[in-house]
Amino acid sequence: MCGIYLDYQSAMPVDTRVLEFAERYLTKEFGNPSALHSVGLAAKSAVEEARRKVAELINAPDPSNIIFTGSATEANNLAIRGTAQRNAAKGKKVLASAIEHISVINAMKDLQKGGFQLTLVPVDSAGIIDLAVLENQLSKDTTVTSVMYANSEIGTIEPIKEISQMVHDKGMFLHVDAVAAQGRIPIDVQKDGIDLLTISSNDMYGPQGAGALYVNPKVKLQPTLLGGGQEKGLRPSTENLFAIAGMGEAARLAKLEMDQESDRLRPIRDSLIKEILKIDEAYLTGHTTIRLPHHASFRFSRIEGESILLTMDAMFNIQVSTGSACSSRTLEPSHVLLAIGLKHEQAHGSMVTTLGKYNNQGEISVIAKAVSQTVQRLRALSPL
Amino acid sequence: MCGIYLDYQSAMPVDTRVLEFAERYLTKEFGNPSALHSVGLAAKSAVEEARRKVAELINAPDPSNIIFTGSATEANNLAIRGTAQRNAAKGKKVLASAIEHISVINAMKDLQKGGFQLTLVPVDSAGIIDLAVLENQLSKDTTVTSVMYANSEIGTIEPIKEISQMVHDKGMFLHVDAVAAQGRIPIDVQKDGIDLLTISSNDMYGPQGAGALYVNPKVKLQPTLLGGGQEKGLRPSTENLFAIAGMGEAARLAKLEMDQESDRLRPIRDSLIKEILKIDEAYLTGHTTIRLPHHASFRFSRIEGESILLTMDAMFNIQVSTGSACSSRTLEPSHVLLAIGLKHEQAHGSMVTTLGKYNNQGEISVIAKAVSQTVQRLRALSPL
Repeated sequence: MCGIYLDYQSAMPVDTRVLEFAERYLTKEFGNPSALHSVGLAAKSAVEEARRKVAELINAPDPSNIIFTGSATEANNLAIRGTAQRNAAKGKKVLASAIEHISVINAMKDLQKGGFQLTLVPVDSAGIIDLAVLENQLSKDTTVTSVMYANSEIGTIEPIKEISQMVHDKGMFLHVDAVAAQGRIPIDVQKDGIDLLTISSNDMYGPQGAGALYVNPKVKLQPTLLGGGQEKGLRPSTENLFAIAGMGEAARLAKLEMDQESDRLRPIRDSLIKEILKIDEAYLTGHTTIRLPHHASFRFSRIEGESILLTMDAMFNIQVSTGSACSSRTLEPSHVLLAIGLKHEQAHGSMVTTLGKYNNQGEISVIAKAVSQTVQRLRALSPL
Repeated sequence: MCGIYLDYQSAMPVDTRVLEFAERYLTKEFGNPSALHSVGLAAKSAVEEARRKVAELINAPDPSNIIFTGSATEANNLAIRGTAQRNAAKGKKVLASAIEHISVINAMKDLQKGGFQLTLVPVDSAGIIDLAVLENQLSKDTTVTSVMYANSEIGTIEPIKEISQMVHDKGMFLHVDAVAAQGRIPIDVQKDGIDLLTISSNDMYGPQGAGALYVNPKVKLQPTLLGGGQEKGLRPSTENLFAIAGMGEAARLAKLEMDQESDRLRPIRDSLIKEILKIDEAYLTGHTTIRLPHHASFRFSRIEGESILLTMDAMFNIQVSTGSACSSRTLEPSHVLLAIGLKHEQAHGSMVTTLGKYNNQGEISVIAKAVSQTVQRLRALSPL
């Protein structure tokens, strides 16, 4: 790559220090953590070290609260389906914000097929959850409530502390998908009152193939995958040692460097927003201030986000996103942009930029110029 | 590691050529295959190249028949639960051999809770499935039959062609877990008549974090994990690019080198068996000839497999297994060894050795001497 990559939300490079730390587990210390011999015990010890590092990142009371999974999607499934199904006797209502990740929404919809009642709580035009509706909908039979820490498409940060208070007032459990926020802003499961928290390795410069679910020991789960006894029986499969060890190291580095890196990116992000908003009929999506420090998302009237993405890539070698990569090959407008009140044609004009460690202030004028030229060009071609 | 590793069934080092091929996907070409820009398209193309290589290894008619998962356990779950649940209207019977991997058995038992009728088909004392019982139990409402290609604990290879013929005679589908056999003996889903085949990356010197399910297009599945549309919606989660690309390269190398490597290992394995059987009251488990070329498994009377493993490791730096690593931390005797007719105390005396690319003939006398001394020592200590 020699262009400008602005799509850190959809995939991140592995930090070279993480790779240096974890690569030994590919070719040299490659044991199966369940094996009882010394090679297996060394592998087990690497997994437990990673568990401690991940626990520290989110201030989990104990490393044993961390369950490693193969991805954040898996962790979301385990949190939602695993809790709801195990605790179905206590109630068959589930709640989520309307802007959750597709893995949360689809896990909830699967529960609906199994007789659960699902309510999607609306958000305002900046993407903040409607706390009055949430409070009104919560009851003592709401087995799981799931609200994300921050949204990956619009960058808005949710008021997790208030939400957890409301959920706990009913004696129920809160699941938080923190994939967009982790490693960007501090997350403290104890202070925030989070019962189940999803994070992912790659979203903090760790290798793909590892996610984690923090589980408050009060929450009883059942596995969504059946097999061996790994991860307390909650995630069977031989542990992915390289990815787990790498995730641990990535978590350690994130804890150390997150504040500094976010302080570095915030003014770059602000410059980018300032420049882009100079373009005619360009609008910021998401909250103006309560947003992730690396996140700038926009919409442009009369043009398609997909055309913006393709033009920016082909003409300027700048990689942006037009929403969630998970659904980017569909023609449906983003459910997040519809939920903040955009019309279909407005939602289609979306461009999402997410900054990372290889971006710098010097790139902003280049990016702004490229976006401006792209928008002009596409509008000139547009029949609208 | 500077000892002698004989536990390739529980974890394998990544082939250095695989690592060299795939490491670019960690730090340089790290795109999300669902992203529409050039970095995403390059990632997608790497996934499709891997799909072709995996399809070629097992002679799948088309690369699109391959669904990448995060592990073999996941692939087994998808094959069994995904097929049975999707086709429940056609019948609620499921069959498996009594010596299947725990992920197959537990996926089947989960179906049982959902009203399916499960039959475990017995095997003979060498571990070969009882074809008469299988044929007798098969009916037109047997939605899924699952029989492994070969067993990882006793090395026995099952008569898959005859089994698939029987299953197809009833118009039903055969799932085969090929994890122990893949890359050791040739597998051809067309000639063998396999409808669903599970393989894993690490079991052929690829990185952990990727498995694959071959799916005959006649078989309709539903996902066991809910989320985005990756892998035709059957395995949501951003693709693990490094593991998938690595699995592809590992499959390519396995196809090229498997026969030669198995021919190299077979006589080494035979020497090992010959030497070990000189020990008093040492017995081979599994079939004497119809077994995997790298696999030698034994039982010793009056001693515990766990003690053998620990002594071999501590005194001789030789790593062996005492059964399946997936259940090695339980005290239960192996269901495989019980299924071949061993009594509990006999099953507890098991030692499994699996050879790999770093083993050679020169090690055999060292291993045999170590096993002999270990057995003598433990028997001297034994109260039995």
